[in-house]
Amino acid sequence: MSLWQRLMTPRSVAVIGASADPAKTSGRPVRYLLKHGYGGRIYPVNPRVAEIEGLRCYPDIAALPEAPDVALVLLGAERTQQAVRELAARGTGAAIVLASGYAEAGKQGERRQRELREAAGAMRILGPNTIGLVNLTDRITLSASGALDAGELLAGSIGLVSQSGGILGALLSRATARGIGFSRLISTSNEVDLDLADFVDMLADDPATRVIALYVESIRDPAAFRRAAQKAARAGKPVVAFKIGRSESGARAAASHTGALAGADRVYDALFAQAGILRAQTFSDLLDMPAALATGRPLTGSRVAVLTSTGGAGTLLADSLGLAGFELPAPTTDTAAALRALQDGDHAVLDRNPIDVTLAGLQPDLLRRVLRVLLDSPDYDALVVIVGSSGVARPELMAEALRDSIGEGGKPVLAYVSPHAPAAAEVLGRFGIAAFHAPESLGAAMAALRHAHEMAARARDEAPGRPPRALPADLPSGTLDEARSKALFAHYGVPGVRERIVHDAGQARAAAAELGPRVALKLLSARITHKTEMGGVRLGETVDSVGASLDEMRQAVRSQAGFEPDAFLVQEMASGVAELILGVRRDALGTALLIGMGGVVAELVRDTALLLLPEAGAALRAEQVREALHGLKTWPLLDGYRGRPPADVDALVEAVLAFAEMAQALGPRLVEAEINPLFVRARGQGVLAADGVAVLADSDIAP
Amino acid sequence: MSLWQRLMTPRSVAVIGASADPAKTSGRPVRYLLKHGYGGRIYPVNPRVAEIEGLRCYPDIAALPEAPDVALVLLGAERTQQAVRELAARGTGAAIVLASGYAEAGKQGERRQRELREAAGAMRILGPNTIGLVNLTDRITLSASGALDAGELLAGSIGLVSQSGGILGALLSRATARGIGFSRLISTSNEVDLDLADFVDMLADDPATRVIALYVESIRDPAAFRRAAQKAARAGKPVVAFKIGRSESGARAAASHTGALAGADRVYDALFAQAGILRAQTFSDLLDMPAALATGRPLTGSRVAVLTSTGGAGTLLADSLGLAGFELPAPTTDTAAALRALQDGDHAVLDRNPIDVTLAGLQPDLLRRVLRVLLDSPDYDALVVIVGSSGVARPELMAEALRDSIGEGGKPVLAYVSPHAPAAAEVLGRFGIAAFHAPESLGAAMAALRHAHEMAARARDEAPGRPPRALPADLPSGTLDEARSKALFAHYGVPGVRERIVHDAGQARAAAAELGPRVALKLLSARITHKTEMGGVRLGETVDSVGASLDEMRQAVRSQAGFEPDAFLVQEMASGVAELILGVRRDALGTALLIGMGGVVAELVRDTALLLLPEAGAALRAEQVREALHGLKTWPLLDGYRGRPPADVDALVEAVLAFAEMAQALGPRLVEAEINPLFVRARGQGVLAADGVAVLADSDIAP
Repeated sequence: MSLWQRLMTPRSVAVIGASADPAKTSGRPVRYLLKHGYGGRIYPVNPRVAEIEGLRCYPDIAALPEAPDVALVLLGAERTQQAVRELAARGTGAAIVLASGYAEAGKQGERRQRELREAAGAMRILGPNTIGLVNLTDRITLSASGALDAGELLAGSIGLVSQSGGILGALLSRATARGIGFSRLISTSNEVDLDLADFVDMLADDPATRVIALYVESIRDPAAFRRAAQKAARAGKPVVAFKIGRSESGARAAASHTGALAGADRVYDALFAQAGILRAQTFSDLLDMPAALATGRPLTGSRVAVLTSTGGAGTLLADSLGLAGFELPAPTTDTAAALRALQDGDHAVLDRNPIDVTLAGLQPDLLRRVLRVLLDSPDYDALVVIVGSSGVARPELMAEALRDSIGEGGKPVLAYVSPHAPAAAEVLGRFGIAAFHAPESLGAAMAALRHAHEMAARARDEAPGRPPRALPADLPSGTLDEARSKALFAHYGVPGVRERIVHDAGQARAAAAELGPRVALKLLSARITHKTEMGGVRLGETVDSVGASLDEMRQAVRSQAGFEPDAFLVQEMASGVAELILGVRRDALGTALLIGMGGVVAELVRDTALLLLPEAGAALRAEQVREALHGLKTWPLLDGYRGRPPADVDALVEAVLAFAEMAQALGPRLVEAEINPLFVRARGQGVLAADGVAVLADSDIAP
Repeated sequence: MSLWQRLMTPRSVAVIGASADPAKTSGRPVRYLLKHGYGGRIYPVNPRVAEIEGLRCYPDIAALPEAPDVALVLLGAERTQQAVRELAARGTGAAIVLASGYAEAGKQGERRQRELREAAGAMRILGPNTIGLVNLTDRITLSASGALDAGELLAGSIGLVSQSGGILGALLSRATARGIGFSRLISTSNEVDLDLADFVDMLADDPATRVIALYVESIRDPAAFRRAAQKAARAGKPVVAFKIGRSESGARAAASHTGALAGADRVYDALFAQAGILRAQTFSDLLDMPAALATGRPLTGSRVAVLTSTGGAGTLLADSLGLAGFELPAPTTDTAAALRALQDGDHAVLDRNPIDVTLAGLQPDLLRRVLRVLLDSPDYDALVVIVGSSGVARPELMAEALRDSIGEGGKPVLAYVSPHAPAAAEVLGRFGIAAFHAPESLGAAMAALRHAHEMAARARDEAPGRPPRALPADLPSGTLDEARSKALFAHYGVPGVRERIVHDAGQARAAAAELGPRVALKLLSARITHKTEMGGVRLGETVDSVGASLDEMRQAVRSQAGFEPDAFLVQEMASGVAELILGVRRDALGTALLIGMGGVVAELVRDTALLLLPEAGAALRAEQVREALHGLKTWPLLDGYRGRPPADVDALVEAVLAFAEMAQALGPRLVEAEINPLFVRARGQGVLAADGVAVLADSDIAP
């Protein structure tokens, strides 16, 4: 029996610390199991009572008649560890630990959590600090969530994993009221063992789950998470995530290096993008987007018909859909003729969009005929129907007309409920039509349908990486000076400007004669990374001036930095159609690659794109780099803006891929690297790295 | 009796076209008037029935026993005009016209709407195409909105004006379910006479109204609207507006001139900012922000305490509040000590923020004591309380504790309802505590409280304008050439670069000798505005080169533009710490002033600020210009970024004010004007307009 089977459809459940008092939290799980119709064996364990809810109560774990598939442990933290040890010893499949007071509660709690892990041995643990899990498909509740007090719970095809138990309950309660059903709900919380990634992986295999929704506080194992998300994508199951911790990034001080440009929350954005996960921007989107996706009706275009009986709401929805990137074209000849044929008197104007049937259009027959025309019309990729004030008194009116009309697997149909009409929304939901109270949520859900369809198309053409180039011999550690950094970049295929290392005025003059007529003179030092501030950069030098300049630079650095530099760089003066910045940095979530336009203005407006590199064995794809470049607001600078020559974007893409390949090849040896500026020259002329730095970890870290 | 009194508290109401069939829309108004307790005289008018809802029915308007204060006209458009004429002849105060088929329905409808206006004569009209108005303070319903079918309607202090009748009904229905009350609701719709601005003006005087909420499709009289909004501000009444038509702007093609940089929706942003109006970003904010503002508890800082019994929701709210710009500091010594003194066992950790009282904290006594400590604590400016799963079974628990604790006029207290618990939200609303289901809405409402407080402080220091400078003599019409444009700007106080108009190579050499060593040579022509594309700009010319360059430029323009230019400009080569673009344009909503950083990158990222100029007599304030500059992402470029010299911001502000003064002085004579670039030099060195253009209307338009 797999772990999933034991957790989701256990043959037996022990409830350790069950209370006979139904008002107590520890009195809930047994009651809920019975109430929602669990058919397996339940073993309450409590030395002080003989019977709970009519079931025999066992005095201790040793007294249990068998090793249970799952144990719910309701004891306080201080007694949990011993119970877990005993459950493991009995051969229990998995323990669900509700106690708090672990890693969320300081040093002592962290120690306690480590001990819990040890006590469990080979037994799997969900929690601690979890509210448990709920399998609505099979009506098995292994949870103390008060949301299970609700009368009837609705099974559906959304699988939810939440890192907060309270949020699991809130979502279950809210979804039920809207006729939205879940397949399984799992609260992972402290994740001492089973985590978010484990459950995404299992839900990807779960036939009852069509869409996966995630409430994320932090991702502890990004690599496993990515693998699980990719598995879900291969299974054709969209994953929607709402992630908190966004405002930390807002508080970050402005700074110019890659790390700060990226920001913690942006790395999550990059992770979700890379893993093909749809990010919910608002908490309500975490229900709204899955509700639309769960209907399984693909959105293949951006043309939406809006059907309304109330003009104001039609205009409001048109505006929201427009903001979300959709069009509302008027019906073309055939559709317009079909609509006009249905016209009843001169009140309704059916050949516009929004299509306003007015109150007359609320006759069920007319409604069905209009729906049929719109669902069959090649003019539209999706349909939005608006429920007006009739939804208060006759909540089933629109829902029944839709249920009878839409059939299986056609274009998406979403409903907007304009007045407060919860019953209308619920009945729509139960009929499999996602219904929204907020126009913005409907727009977000429609956009999610679009993105899911695009990503599904993309998932098919994943490409493996090219074999990685060998590391250069004698790779040093620490901060590399400019020449060594650029040599490293060049080894992987990013060309740099021509340059010579010089040590005195004579060598500088010789180099200038070779690289001139004008050259740049720079301090070369691994100790000083901000050369400009030290007077360590001079542009436009000539054979005549460069010698004296070198001596002055040497003096300036000595007086300011307190040491006498002995190496300098003489470089050709490069320029380009545009200058970019490329950065790469190892982050907790993976290796993040930043692409941005160079220059102070672009830096201030943070016009950058962030990509997470795939794991070893896979390569960043040229298409991803092109998309990132196209997404820059300053993209036109590369594309022949205002009569400029178009930049060599092909060479730029190659350079970015080479830089990424370097980062992957260096692996943990790479701390961070940056090229700034990377000159992108006119089409056919390539790119040139004019400055850069790499920081490497000690060589005893295996690449 | 004022118009307001006649509309809101009419002594008599005639209902023209009232139906005896309560199922019909025209059967509703009389029924609603009676149902909600109207105490005045009701006169149904219908020639086919003798009695409606027990009231005597009159065969026609002539038969009415008196001229009614208000008439509700329920007839179709074709019969409405005659009824309106008869009502006006009888001396009726105002007619509320429900018929559709007017300006919203094409050419014929527009004509019909003009005829309606004429038929009304001196009688005022609300509508046509309106759903009417509802005075909840006095329980008088002059409306056919199906939302009035609801059992009990809640009076409150929010005055709503909606340009859509359907949206009025939707908001009334949604607010009622959440315990949010309105004072008055007015649907203005087609606004043939009474419009949005009229009702904002009247609500500013209305003692029953504390907050004004607006659903805006378009503003027909921006000047009157601004005056009304300013009146509301002086009365201390926040105005919240939700405006549709936002996605039009998204569809605008990218372009570089002022108009396109601005975009229609941004002008509304500027109008709302200028008028001190809070803009609701989502439809639900249009209820949520007023609900918080209506409590009348001012928010004077940004420190928020979050009180919760469920950890997950506390973290979620902390994140949303952080995104909305608020801090959640931990309690300091005294508050922490007071909280610890209340601590009950070791489960609750009360000296953090969010303050988690856990389930134990749901004892009403403990809750009241914790609330008291937080409300009295100088550590916090506002309090958010989270209603957890207890809100489902015991909806009144938190509401009653809050009602007993908060008193009058203290710091704001907002509630977040985590599970689906509509009864808890409703009872909180009825107790005057704004309650939210979406964490983002709570954040937006909190931000609205903050902005309303800041704007109230600002409203006190309005400053009058300086007396406008006289127009220059002999002001031409049409597009002015560069020299004349800059002379006009200089007349109002924006200095330009030194320059000479020259006609031949000899004059050019002389000018270069005077202005050199290096100069710019430009084509001078009102016919060609894109000089650069014509080869009409050459930089870095010397005395030696400028003559030949002039001759070449003359040739180039002749061959490309087909005419031989006879005038050129020789200018000093200016530069600055930064270059800006200033634009001004007459828009339907007022005169819009655009300030942006110059250069292609800034242009592409649209880093611009837009201000609407005040009406004649008032001046743009230096503080507004400084705020706009500070709001630019590229502001650091003016402020000594990375060792640059700080720019002469004082001179820049003066130049912007001068440019604005020019626009006000020119009035309708000005079509548009632009300075690009305006060089801002180092502190103390002023600004220089290096290029610019002004377009003036014909001089027979009076300034």
